[in-house]
Amino acid sequence: MVTAKVWVLKKHFQGFPKPSDFDLKKIELPSLQDGELLLESVFLSVDPYMRPYSQRDMKEGDVMIGTQVARIVESKNPAFAAGAFVVANSGWRSHFISDGKGLHLLPSSWPESLPKSLALGTVGMPGLTAYFGLFEVCKMKPGETVLVNAAAGAVGSVVGQLAKIGGCKVVGCAGSDDKVAYLKKIGFDEAFNYKTVTSLDEALSKASPDGYDCFFDNVGGEFSSIAINHMKKHGRIAVCGAISQYNDSVPQKGPYVQIPMIFKELRMEGFIVTSWNNRREEGQKALLKWVLEGKVKFHEQVTEGFENMPAAFIGMLRGENLGKAIVKV
Amino acid sequence: MVTAKVWVLKKHFQGFPKPSDFDLKKIELPSLQDGELLLESVFLSVDPYMRPYSQRDMKEGDVMIGTQVARIVESKNPAFAAGAFVVANSGWRSHFISDGKGLHLLPSSWPESLPKSLALGTVGMPGLTAYFGLFEVCKMKPGETVLVNAAAGAVGSVVGQLAKIGGCKVVGCAGSDDKVAYLKKIGFDEAFNYKTVTSLDEALSKASPDGYDCFFDNVGGEFSSIAINHMKKHGRIAVCGAISQYNDSVPQKGPYVQIPMIFKELRMEGFIVTSWNNRREEGQKALLKWVLEGKVKFHEQVTEGFENMPAAFIGMLRGENLGKAIVKV
Repeated sequence: MVTAKVWVLKKHFQGFPKPSDFDLKKIELPSLQDGELLLESVFLSVDPYMRPYSQRDMKEGDVMIGTQVARIVESKNPAFAAGAFVVANSGWRSHFISDGKGLHLLPSSWPESLPKSLALGTVGMPGLTAYFGLFEVCKMKPGETVLVNAAAGAVGSVVGQLAKIGGCKVVGCAGSDDKVAYLKKIGFDEAFNYKTVTSLDEALSKASPDGYDCFFDNVGGEFSSIAINHMKKHGRIAVCGAISQYNDSVPQKGPYVQIPMIFKELRMEGFIVTSWNNRREEGQKALLKWVLEGKVKFHEQVTEGFENMPAAFIGMLRGENLGKAIVKV
Repeated sequence: MVTAKVWVLKKHFQGFPKPSDFDLKKIELPSLQDGELLLESVFLSVDPYMRPYSQRDMKEGDVMIGTQVARIVESKNPAFAAGAFVVANSGWRSHFISDGKGLHLLPSSWPESLPKSLALGTVGMPGLTAYFGLFEVCKMKPGETVLVNAAAGAVGSVVGQLAKIGGCKVVGCAGSDDKVAYLKKIGFDEAFNYKTVTSLDEALSKASPDGYDCFFDNVGGEFSSIAINHMKKHGRIAVCGAISQYNDSVPQKGPYVQIPMIFKELRMEGFIVTSWNNRREEGQKALLKWVLEGKVKFHEQVTEGFENMPAAFIGMLRGENLGKAIVKV
């Protein structure tokens, strides 16, 4: 008999999530049936999307949504061997039973030297989000200038490095001097701390006086409203996230976008990485190759202990992480 | 010696344009040089774009920007014969001299029975805006549902009819009951008066409970903010105009667009018809054919007299026109 720990949404978030919105519960798992597997989570992911998606898709009492790298403890399913590692989308659980559907085995080319947690970050959903957002939504071309915000985060840090690989100039912005130093270290051409610049407008002008062809937006809100005025004609805006808005109790307002959209013939597109599920393998292979070649560097902010998931999630929403926020069980 | 009357921007518009912002002047035109033509305007266009473009591109004292159908009075240019009609982009002038550059002869297939003013409307810039906006920006497909606002205007009325030709369901909205009656007469499936509905949100739900695949936006502002919530997944928004915002002294604000853009993976694109200048002939030919077949109906709001141009312009910005606002000299 295995006892799983699970984190439950006790109360829908009102404004910024609080520790008391979560409840840690224990669930006794039944014995395996034929075709089933028992898994234990090794690394769990906390991501910005969980904030708006919990609001939209969950009810109070549900296990928090989320993804993990898990080890197969026991298998009654011939397609999966005990000891193997998979990426699962099973929520905030220490252990769980699966029928194998929706599990992704770690690529066979995964080297021993590489942390398996990267399958939740640079070589996982956030990396793929950067990959498809930049190449397919922005349709970035060599020689262009790319702007990315929340640039030291799980997605933004990959965006900037992929844009460099693609022959672009990259401007990133983040919320601390340490993060800015990190961005410069991993190859961003220009980087600044949006919290300490006297004017975001001036900082954007200075970083690229000619403006921006592509804007990979993870933040939304006021940042986007200012950045739109710095787009070049026929610029493309990939709307990936809106972390500045996720915790609003009352939706914020900003200037309407229509006039700059028309004058500069801009394209703005919201996207979700699952739209490219059929090309997941292609993206993951490319990202893994670049990581192994050292062309894409990674950084993880690892919180130890399953019981610290809410704290890791809240910290990530506050922007306390550099790179990918991971919880190690 | 010919004396031309011209309308000059006396004072940049502050908020809504006033008659006193304009000045009527007389200019004596010189004799023709070799290669030149003397033209007289027969029909002039007043269009919403003049409001924001005057702000952006003109200085006080400049002749107002605009397009006309003009008759060639005298020609010292072998490419143009006296008596022929052209579309010119020469501003608010009763007469003018041209070197022939940028003049478009009316298509040779233009039938005698058809008003030449249509070259400023349904078979001109507004018609082409509808054509390229719907087919190229929205990438409308048969069976989809299309929403258009300012639907009884020069562009909107063509959008709706082209969407019907393309096999779509069309919902239009306009600002008077007469306009709504006109929309139904020319084949819109659903039409409503946005000024008299108790809730725009409810009216949009009722007109298409499943939502909208394409939204051809001529209005911007609050209408757009409500309409975006009615888009279907992977919906496309063609941002053509923002007439609700053009006269703002202080820019209005509305809810940020990022969250609905992401959740529904929407694409929003601002566009200007001149981007398809290389396909102008194709579009004009198609529109002329549909007009002659009776598949695209037209209505013009004709103001008589060159001296009434400011009044026609102001009235058009107030939405007083049904169909294309034209000034007949």
